Amino acid sequence: MTRRLPVVGILGGGQLARMLSIAAAPLGVRTLVVDSSADACAGQVTQLLVADWNDDAALADFASQVDVVTFDFENVPAETAERLASQVGVFPAPQALAIAQDRLAEKTLFRECGLNTPEFMPVDTREDLDRALAVVGAPAILKTRRLGYDGKGQFRLRSAADADAAWEALGAPAAAHGLILEAFVPFERELSVVAVRGRHGEFRIWPLTRNWHTDGVLSLSLAPAPDTSDALHEAATAHARTLAERLNYVGVFALELFVRNGELLGNEMAPRVHNSGHWTIEGAHTSQFENHIRAVLGMPLGDTGARGCAAMFNWIGDMPDARPVLEAVDGHWHDYGKEARVGRKVGHATICAPDAGSLRERLVSIAGALGREEQAQPAVDLLG
Amino acid sequence: MTRRLPVVGILGGGQLARMLSIAAAPLGVRTLVVDSSADACAGQVTQLLVADWNDDAALADFASQVDVVTFDFENVPAETAERLASQVGVFPAPQALAIAQDRLAEKTLFRECGLNTPEFMPVDTREDLDRALAVVGAPAILKTRRLGYDGKGQFRLRSAADADAAWEALGAPAAAHGLILEAFVPFERELSVVAVRGRHGEFRIWPLTRNWHTDGVLSLSLAPAPDTSDALHEAATAHARTLAERLNYVGVFALELFVRNGELLGNEMAPRVHNSGHWTIEGAHTSQFENHIRAVLGMPLGDTGARGCAAMFNWIGDMPDARPVLEAVDGHWHDYGKEARVGRKVGHATICAPDAGSLRERLVSIAGALGREEQAQPAVDLLG
Ligand SMILES: Nc1ncnc2c1ncn2[C@@H]1O[C@H](COP(=O)(O)OP(=O)(O)OP(=O)(O)O)[C@@H](O)[C@H]1O
Ligand SMILES: Nc1ncnc2c1ncn2[C@@H]1O[C@H](COP(=O)(O)OP(=O)(O)OP(=O)(O)O)[C@@H](O)[C@H]1O
Repeated sequence: MTRRLPVVGILGGGQLARMLSIAAAPLGVRTLVVDSSADACAGQVTQLLVADWNDDAALADFASQVDVVTFDFENVPAETAERLASQVGVFPAPQALAIAQDRLAEKTLFRECGLNTPEFMPVDTREDLDRALAVVGAPAILKTRRLGYDGKGQFRLRSAADADAAWEALGAPAAAHGLILEAFVPFERELSVVAVRGRHGEFRIWPLTRNWHTDGVLSLSLAPAPDTSDALHEAATAHARTLAERLNYVGVFALELFVRNGELLGNEMAPRVHNSGHWTIEGAHTSQFENHIRAVLGMPLGDTGARGCAAMFNWIGDMPDARPVLEAVDGHWHDYGKEARVGRKVGHATICAPDAGSLRERLVSIAGALGREEQAQPAVDLLG
Repeated sequence: MTRRLPVVGILGGGQLARMLSIAAAPLGVRTLVVDSSADACAGQVTQLLVADWNDDAALADFASQVDVVTFDFENVPAETAERLASQVGVFPAPQALAIAQDRLAEKTLFRECGLNTPEFMPVDTREDLDRALAVVGAPAILKTRRLGYDGKGQFRLRSAADADAAWEALGAPAAAHGLILEAFVPFERELSVVAVRGRHGEFRIWPLTRNWHTDGVLSLSLAPAPDTSDALHEAATAHARTLAERLNYVGVFALELFVRNGELLGNEMAPRVHNSGHWTIEGAHTSQFENHIRAVLGMPLGDTGARGCAAMFNWIGDMPDARPVLEAVDGHWHDYGKEARVGRKVGHATICAPDAGSLRERLVSIAGALGREEQAQPAVDLLG
């Protein structure tokens, strides 16, 4: 009797698909990745099918080879996800994906679920923008409703006088995808809840993660977030659970939050494994990648407890010298095997330690050796 | 400028090549595996070249595609390793491999290096066997000098009266490979030293591992070995280092030891990552697989400290129900993606815990749920 290993199909072949595939292997689970580029970095570690999202024949073939389908990339067209869902289980479901793809639907849902958000207004025309500015006030951020990531498709307005410049930059996408104007929140900190929900409704979260962004891109994460009260932790967990249940969500997702005056505001929900959860590979008993694979296949979820403290540095553009991390105690290197390119996420490093004090020491020494003091500083200060 | 990722070529495509490949990926290192079987389980996670050891053209092509060559399988013919070494760096070097492949050369080296061994005598003919029995005494074990693994190619003699039966079983290989008769050692325990040596002579060992075998196959490991004095630890480390230096060894190896009356006896040296080091994937800061990749590529070695305590169960023949391990705190499942077959190593599970007491509790509960109380018992008793 030949054994058939389960196969998870992944739409998108970037670093998330790559790390999902690496996590799947020890479970005896195979992956098959679809990407429009033959260079997609997940293709280095698993089978890659080169096809576009609108190549129906290729996607039907893909669906016939897999047990379930999931996402590395949240901006897969909803129609693609739906067409696949008529053939095979798709997790998260296309309906959940559709909401998380749209900043307006997402923030509307947050509010319906009792999670406050920055003030926002939809913007479809130049006149809408003026109306929205009158309501939302300035400073504010104009964002495309769809297809934004890593701070792309955003324009910051210091005052209403920036409206023309903002429209210049984002008026074109407005017609196709719509825009949203959000109040700029002078937040005290950014947190994310990385959570997982199984096919039978089982729900778990990893300890809250504190995040720092540079130019709209995640730069540094620290977990468990050291300055988090039990009340905040419980509120964040409750919001994540409510959203997941409301969407009948299956798999890992991240809920990105701002803390302002001690209150939580929902920024966005990423319907997939998330950069702020990369520390879970070494810093938690089960990584977000392994639990996502388990969740979409209906396997029992693994324990999401932390092993100690962890900090994650994102490498943007190109990889620094690996040596200081390779030589560090409990330092872990992640090179996605990508070509260097300005603004591209090419890798990360996670530094673990049993306690805050020793993590601080390790960060200081590694950041010094890397010449990355500035990147590490917020975490060093907080652990101090 | 296109980036070229380093490629490690691996001879043999079993679970060791599979786990080496999984460990290589985060380092931005690719692997290319050669195996005579298209089904080799490493082929599920990396590129597989199907070729026999004597297919010179295929191996030359393989060598041209990789930066260094290493082994999943120690019984690669020495000529194959040497031919490759004329084309590309081979680590460990063919000379070191040749010694570790031959139980007689290996035990002779152990003694030269001051590591005692069970009494032994080479046996090439039926008369040699009688002579050897007279010197070594009974009980004893007759083993093929080469090509043995997992207790294969061995015959246990309770007394000299078993000599005919032993010759019946192993006389044929004697002509081709030679045999060795070893005194059967009524050891108190079995330990292994898993160690790594870098291309520049850097040397590290993981904490000693206590091992239990069933029918000559590893069944259970526990690390750090809980009943090990500092003196024993230092002696074992010193032996491993001496051997590695003597062989100018590069990469991970395991030195399997018996403890008898508190004295260490060398059983064998496995010139590769080793089953008794699988616990390092989750139980140590750097796994044996990652450090082997680092070592053969000349990268800095990672910290080999333990994260706590770990126990590893080997799954032989077929995989048990995964659920009790998947549901356990810090329980880790490893399914090699192989077909079930009697006596075959198809997977393992590692259970980690911060201390001996909690590891014991977890083992009791998981072994109970799996119906594997007997397999876990020696560790449970020792942790008690
Ligand atoms: N309304 C806001 N007020 C203040 N800062 C904001 C606001 N919106 C976004 N930012 C800052 O920009 C970062 C990226 O914004 P956002 O999450 O909307 O972008 P994205 O392109 O969806 O990025 P990703 O999904 O990669 O996190 C936020 O994490 C935050 O630091
Ligand atoms: N001389 C000996 N005295 C007592 N027990 C022995 C002796 N030799 C082997 N054994 C037992 O058999 C096991 C396997 O033996 P050995 O290491 O020689 O086999 P192998 O086929 O090389 O296995 P592997 O390389 O997979 O460990 C040992 O770990 C030990 O438990």
